[in-house]
Amino acid sequence: MSDELRFPTGIGDSDADHITVLGKDLAGELMGRVGFGELAFWLVAGRRPTPGETRVFEAVLVALADHGFTPTAIAARLTYLSAPDSVQGALAAGLLGGGSRFLGVTEDCGRFLADAIAAHDGPPPADDAGWDALALAAVTAARRERRLIPGLGHPVHKVEDPRTPVLLRIAEEEGLRGPHLRLFEAIGRVHPQVLGRKLPLNGAGVCGAALADLGLPVDLLRGFALLARTAGLLGHLAEERRRPIGMDVYLTVDRNTAYEPDEG
Amino acid sequence: MSDELRFPTGIGDSDADHITVLGKDLAGELMGRVGFGELAFWLVAGRRPTPGETRVFEAVLVALADHGFTPTAIAARLTYLSAPDSVQGALAAGLLGGGSRFLGVTEDCGRFLADAIAAHDGPPPADDAGWDALALAAVTAARRERRLIPGLGHPVHKVEDPRTPVLLRIAEEEGLRGPHLRLFEAIGRVHPQVLGRKLPLNGAGVCGAALADLGLPVDLLRGFALLARTAGLLGHLAEERRRPIGMDVYLTVDRNTAYEPDEG
Amino acid sequence: MSDELRFPTGIGDSDADHITVLGKDLAGELMGRVGFGELAFWLVAGRRPTPGETRVFEAVLVALADHGFTPTAIAARLTYLSAPDSVQGALAAGLLGGGSRFLGVTEDCGRFLADAIAAHDGPPPADDAGWDALALAAVTAARRERRLIPGLGHPVHKVEDPRTPVLLRIAEEEGLRGPHLRLFEAIGRVHPQVLGRKLPLNGAGVCGAALADLGLPVDLLRGFALLARTAGLLGHLAEERRRPIGMDVYLTVDRNTAYEPDEG
Amino acid sequence: MSDELRFPTGIGDSDADHITVLGKDLAGELMGRVGFGELAFWLVAGRRPTPGETRVFEAVLVALADHGFTPTAIAARLTYLSAPDSVQGALAAGLLGGGSRFLGVTEDCGRFLADAIAAHDGPPPADDAGWDALALAAVTAARRERRLIPGLGHPVHKVEDPRTPVLLRIAEEEGLRGPHLRLFEAIGRVHPQVLGRKLPLNGAGVCGAALADLGLPVDLLRGFALLARTAGLLGHLAEERRRPIGMDVYLTVDRNTAYEPDEG
Repeated sequence: MSDELRFPTGIGDSDADHITVLGKDLAGELMGRVGFGELAFWLVAGRRPTPGETRVFEAVLVALADHGFTPTAIAARLTYLSAPDSVQGALAAGLLGGGSRFLGVTEDCGRFLADAIAAHDGPPPADDAGWDALALAAVTAARRERRLIPGLGHPVHKVEDPRTPVLLRIAEEEGLRGPHLRLFEAIGRVHPQVLGRKLPLNGAGVCGAALADLGLPVDLLRGFALLARTAGLLGHLAEERRRPIGMDVYLTVDRNTAYEPDEG
Repeated sequence: MSDELRFPTGIGDSDADHITVLGKDLAGELMGRVGFGELAFWLVAGRRPTPGETRVFEAVLVALADHGFTPTAIAARLTYLSAPDSVQGALAAGLLGGGSRFLGVTEDCGRFLADAIAAHDGPPPADDAGWDALALAAVTAARRERRLIPGLGHPVHKVEDPRTPVLLRIAEEEGLRGPHLRLFEAIGRVHPQVLGRKLPLNGAGVCGAALADLGLPVDLLRGFALLARTAGLLGHLAEERRRPIGMDVYLTVDRNTAYEPDEG
Repeated sequence: MSDELRFPTGIGDSDADHITVLGKDLAGELMGRVGFGELAFWLVAGRRPTPGETRVFEAVLVALADHGFTPTAIAARLTYLSAPDSVQGALAAGLLGGGSRFLGVTEDCGRFLADAIAAHDGPPPADDAGWDALALAAVTAARRERRLIPGLGHPVHKVEDPRTPVLLRIAEEEGLRGPHLRLFEAIGRVHPQVLGRKLPLNGAGVCGAALADLGLPVDLLRGFALLARTAGLLGHLAEERRRPIGMDVYLTVDRNTAYEPDEG
Repeated sequence: MSDELRFPTGIGDSDADHITVLGKDLAGELMGRVGFGELAFWLVAGRRPTPGETRVFEAVLVALADHGFTPTAIAARLTYLSAPDSVQGALAAGLLGGGSRFLGVTEDCGRFLADAIAAHDGPPPADDAGWDALALAAVTAARRERRLIPGLGHPVHKVEDPRTPVLLRIAEEEGLRGPHLRLFEAIGRVHPQVLGRKLPLNGAGVCGAALADLGLPVDLLRGFALLARTAGLLGHLAEERRRPIGMDVYLTVDRNTAYEPDEG
């Protein structure tokens, strides 16, 4: 049947005595020698990251792991309250909020930057002035088409998102401040000329730029935000077991429910 | 209103200029300084792991990250095929298979070992003979009640699961071969006397024992298998984009569908 | 290849000109002639329900469709807030709360009754006295083993759950007040002798008894609660679009968050 | 606190003696008197459908309930295989495939038709010639912008989708063949002039047109496909318990896995 049916994969394989992951012997070459973040990068990119790439990548995962009581964390805790027998269900419920609005910025920003770079003819800019010109063109075009510029502005961090300068510094230290991060910085410099006010470069956006500079697939950047968030959600479920708030959230809504006809 | 309503959390907090995670300044103290696996442990346990604990913990995550085309990986790829616009949905679908049968062994084994240790009166055994006696009692009781002993046996690795000796060695190197791992090894020695045949100690089981020795909550051990699997599922989705198999899986089923009445 | 590979199903089939569902021509024999609830019963049971069975079945679905702002409805609305691009994700998040605690009673009650009837030797009781004796034995055994009796008690309806007498009446009208419902009623009569106080027979429980009397598989009764709840969740998502509360729920939690270290 | 906090809803409410759903007494006015499909329409639209609207609506749900071994049905069965303890997880996994590709056509078609009607100035066309002109403009514009016309074509039903004429006839019988269905029919007549070949009007598309003519919110049409599919998925899970195919699907993939490096 193998002539007819073939399901190729480069991820994993095993026989009676060995388990191969990414072409390496899982037990002999990976366990205890490769970090979890390093393996996650490797699994998606199909190549092992350098130590510098790993440091930037893990800094991004750490930056995105948790934001306290987000709607997704609350949804996960409410689901755990309703179905404590299914940890996987509570985690999944929390991840399902990782869509366009709350976790999408990382991917949207990476894509916005990648598209602007792809649209640029000739060699990449050699200096900040060149990046500023590219940024100005991209922001002006987005403004003209009434599109939001992803990565600009934050509801809480109105002046500066503390994650942004730190991730830029880490990328610089590792020699990984590439075109996406440079363009993102340039957008931070030039957007007031177009938008008429200065907005901070937010953490989700700088993470998207950094992931794109690591050569990770732009269409899956949201996936890394989801991986990071999985750790945060596990933290919320562990805390929900020790100090539950799900029932209080439910009762708060229930006690303040106002029945009002809604004719649709 | 804060007198009436209080939602306490020790996970995260933020104001205009700072983001606090686990009581640390996210940007200044965590990003670039804490690994992702280390943070995941910290989020769940509420305490920062030592370097040795981190190494064992990440070895477990690496061991559990992927097993090739498992039913959950196939389900995630089929979901991505059907709804490529929702990476979070495909990931969630893959995690939802992380239940009793395929990802549950890690948690079941940790709980089985923890219960056996809790049921043991007096100080923990001082030597292998003592652990063997405890193991014999636990296996005999389970056998009497017709309960499976989680962590024994593997469909592919019939003689030895290559992950087991390696994780035991890593735990030993880090001084973290604790009571759960010792009892698990003892079960490996004594079970043939009770079951009449020798089965291998499987990788999912040794991971559960190691996580329990790290002091992580037994009721959430499945959660770590899910975190590890999230990285593997991302790898599958990335590969599905490059070398899709979902459509072939679907067509293979569709072409070989046999319509047969089923009266229920 | 069909000799080797065969995936049998009695559910659906199609060719260029026909779509067959449950052995009937979908377009010619089902659309416009079979109700949706009737089809759902048929799909699960593998047989077409009678009009009386359909009426009882739909009464159960109507009884279980919505309970206002349950934790699952809130989780679905929060997920829709976070990822409005994925209606399927918000619905799935809401359904994932359909586990042991909030939607499980229907299935647990059906199973409790089925087990008690299966454990009973000889012919089914001929009169209420016989059912009372069977109920007394089941309640006494559960009490002895410190097991809860599913279907007893309700946080809001402390005296009587209004759904219970109505569903009993409908089943009686349709000649479908079978052994599970009779035993459930008997439990309502005898439990005070054992528990020392009178609790109402709740709506989720009577629905489980009615579904079991319809011959539906006890291990899937939760699935009907989930089907019913899918309609309710759609109603919540539609209302969330018209009169959103998700953001207010989130902000209520966020504004009243108290950061407190939690050492785990 | 109710001055500050208010969570309005018109869906459900309850006190010790009553449960109100949509402003009606659930036990006294809905159970046994309202069908499940009727209630689902009412929950979303905020108004009770007429008997004719209910018949068309349930015909749509019946048409969309199942398509045999779709990728989503296979994903649900594989998830049930992996986590048989969580029916809600298997259902949710199946629904998560209800995205842009496999279940999205219903919603996309309804929106395409609604946008074309909204873009049309003046009164709605009085005759087929008028609808043909409107259809020609819409198809030509979509073609110019290289957008697909949702609802055209089907991989299996290459000449005619048997559901389409039947749903049109049912809508006509109930006096509910409105603008969306008329425009959809017109697209069926005129598209060959623009596309150069004749494609069938598919069942998912005609269902979207019919739901839009019922006045249901275009942004939630996918939700009705998901409700319908929930019944189909329950049927698959029930059959999976009686005649499992999940393990065979998994083993078929596993046995034909070809390990091939994939450099990403």
